[in-house]
Amino acid sequence: MKLATYKDGSRDGQLVVVSRDLSMAHYATGIATRLQQVLDDWNFLSPQLQDLYQALNQGKARHAFAFDPALCMAPLPRAYQWADGSAYLNHVELVRKARGAEVPESVYTEPLMYQGGSDDFLGPCDDIVVASEDFGIDFEAEIAVITGDVPMGASPDEALEGIRLVMLANDVSLRHLIPAELAKGFSFFQSKPATAFSPVAVTPDELGTAWQGGRVHLALQSTWNGKKVGLCDAGPEMQFHFGQLISHVCKTRNVRAGTVVGSGTVSNKDGSHGYSCIAEKRAIETLEHGAPKTEFMRHGDTIRIEMKGLDGQSMCGAIEQKVAPFR
Amino acid sequence: MKLATYKDGSRDGQLVVVSRDLSMAHYATGIATRLQQVLDDWNFLSPQLQDLYQALNQGKARHAFAFDPALCMAPLPRAYQWADGSAYLNHVELVRKARGAEVPESVYTEPLMYQGGSDDFLGPCDDIVVASEDFGIDFEAEIAVITGDVPMGASPDEALEGIRLVMLANDVSLRHLIPAELAKGFSFFQSKPATAFSPVAVTPDELGTAWQGGRVHLALQSTWNGKKVGLCDAGPEMQFHFGQLISHVCKTRNVRAGTVVGSGTVSNKDGSHGYSCIAEKRAIETLEHGAPKTEFMRHGDTIRIEMKGLDGQSMCGAIEQKVAPFR
Repeated sequence: MKLATYKDGSRDGQLVVVSRDLSMAHYATGIATRLQQVLDDWNFLSPQLQDLYQALNQGKARHAFAFDPALCMAPLPRAYQWADGSAYLNHVELVRKARGAEVPESVYTEPLMYQGGSDDFLGPCDDIVVASEDFGIDFEAEIAVITGDVPMGASPDEALEGIRLVMLANDVSLRHLIPAELAKGFSFFQSKPATAFSPVAVTPDELGTAWQGGRVHLALQSTWNGKKVGLCDAGPEMQFHFGQLISHVCKTRNVRAGTVVGSGTVSNKDGSHGYSCIAEKRAIETLEHGAPKTEFMRHGDTIRIEMKGLDGQSMCGAIEQKVAPFR
Repeated sequence: MKLATYKDGSRDGQLVVVSRDLSMAHYATGIATRLQQVLDDWNFLSPQLQDLYQALNQGKARHAFAFDPALCMAPLPRAYQWADGSAYLNHVELVRKARGAEVPESVYTEPLMYQGGSDDFLGPCDDIVVASEDFGIDFEAEIAVITGDVPMGASPDEALEGIRLVMLANDVSLRHLIPAELAKGFSFFQSKPATAFSPVAVTPDELGTAWQGGRVHLALQSTWNGKKVGLCDAGPEMQFHFGQLISHVCKTRNVRAGTVVGSGTVSNKDGSHGYSCIAEKRAIETLEHGAPKTEFMRHGDTIRIEMKGLDGQSMCGAIEQKVAPFR
C-alpha cells in the first residue's frame, strides 16, 4: 500500500492512503490519524489501511479525492531516529578523493553511517531554506526506509523483516561546511540541514521483484533546474543492503518503530548514469581537470527526484524543491 | 515545576507531576497524558500543570500518591532529537590526549556536538544492557535540557528562552568501540548505546539562582559501585552554555519542541572534584603513569548520578542503574 501525510497545520499532519497510480487519496480517519501511530501498532492497524487501499484502487472508497503531492508533509513529518548510511561506495570514494580525505579500509567491510536530525523533516515540495549560497548547497538523492521495532543484536536478515515502508529522500548537504565539521571528529551537524522526503511511502511489496535482497533495483532520477542529471541504478552497487544498515544501527541498542534509515547518495561507477549529487560531478571534474567546473545550487534553483517502478509509473511521487533564501 | 513519566506499558508512558521534595506525584490526566504533548503546546498546557504542581506541594491535590523513581521512564521516553555537546573542555582535552588524538583548535571557540539516537531512551533505573564487557563500558554524567521550538538562526540568548526543562543524563559510552568509529569520520554510532535520564525533569525556575547564564551552578555527584567518585561543579567550566549549544544546532535548521540537548560530561580542571566518567580517570592515570589502572565497568556494576539543589534536596531524583549482560 501507499501512504502519505497531508498538511493540516499540526506537527504530525493527517495520514492518507494513496492509490497505486497516485491519482487518488483517502483520509485514514477511523483507523489512524498519524503515521507514527500506525508504526507503533503495525500489526493491528496496517491490515485496516490495506483494506482501505484496496477499496481506493478499485474506485470503491467513499470519500476519495484527487491526490496532490504539494499538500504533503514528509510521510513522517518528524521521527525518533534518522540514521543515514553511505552504502554506495562509488560516492564515498569520489567525494573523499576530491577533498583529499582518506577512504578508510573499513568502509568496504562495514557500513558507514551518521546520525541525522529528525525533528523537522521537509515535505516533498517545501523550500530548501539556506541562509547563504556560500555554504555550498547540494542535493543528495537517496532511498530511505522506515522500520518497525528491531531488537538489539538483530542479524541483517532479521532486520530486513523490520522494514515497513520505502520512500525517497533529499539529504540536502552544505558542502563548504563539511570539511571543518568533520575535522572536529564528531561528524555532520550544521552541514546537514533539514532532509526532505517523497510525498508517498510504500510497503516493500509495491516494488514487486524490484525489491530484492534488501535493495531497490530501480533507477533514481535527479533533475536539476529542469535538466536530467542522474538516472542511477539503486540496486547492485549498494554495498550494504538495508538489512545490513539496520543491523549496524542495532548492534548495541534497540531500534524502535519509526526509525528512518537512508541508503546514502545513490551512485554508479559507470559515469554515464550521471549523478545524484553535485559533489560527485565536481569530484570527477577535479580528478580529471584539477578543479571543479560545476557550481553548487543557487537560490531559485530547483531539484526533482523521482523513481519509476517496473510498470513505468512513479513509485513514491516526486520530491520537487526550490532553494530559497532565509527570511 | 517538576514532571516525570510513569511506566504504563505504552511507548510514551503517563505524565505525572511530582512535588518539589519528590515525595508525592499526581497523574496529569485531564491536562495531558504525554510529555511531548505538553512540549508541543507549552503555553496552553504548562500553566495548567503548574496549578496542579502548586496544589500538590500544598497537599491539596486530590489523588496524590507516593512518588517512586523506579517506576519512571525517561521524562521523554523517546525524542525527536538528541544533540549532545561536549562543553566541558577539560573532558575533551583529557580524553583526546589520552587516546593520542589531537584537540582541534576550534573546540575553544565553537561547540563540539554530536547527534545521538533518541528513539529508545532508558528510564533512571533501567539496566544498562551491554553484550560484552570488552566494549569498555563507561558512564558519563551530564546535564541535559529539553527545548521548545527554536527557529533557525536563533542567537544564544534567544535560544536560552527556548529551554523548557532541565534533567540529568547518563550518556553511556562504549570506549573501546570509539577509536575505530571516529576514525571513519562519521562520529559515534555503536559506541553510544541508549542514554538514560533522571526520573524528573524540572523547569529552570526550580533551580533558583543556581540557573545562571544558561549554566547550572550546582555539583553533579557520581557514585560508582557505592563509592563517590565525582562531585563536579557543573557551572563555571561549561565553556559553552546551553543557549550557545542550542544556537549551534539551529544555525542551519529549525529546532523543534522536544529536542534534548546535552552538556557533555561534567568535568573540572581541579582533580579533587573527582570524575563524571571513567575515561577521565584513566586518562589522568595514563598521562601520569603511562597506562590506565582503573578498569571500565563490569556486568553487575552500579552507577548513581544525582544533583542537589541549593536547598540540599535532590533536584531531579537519581539515575541508579546496573550494568547487565545481553539476554
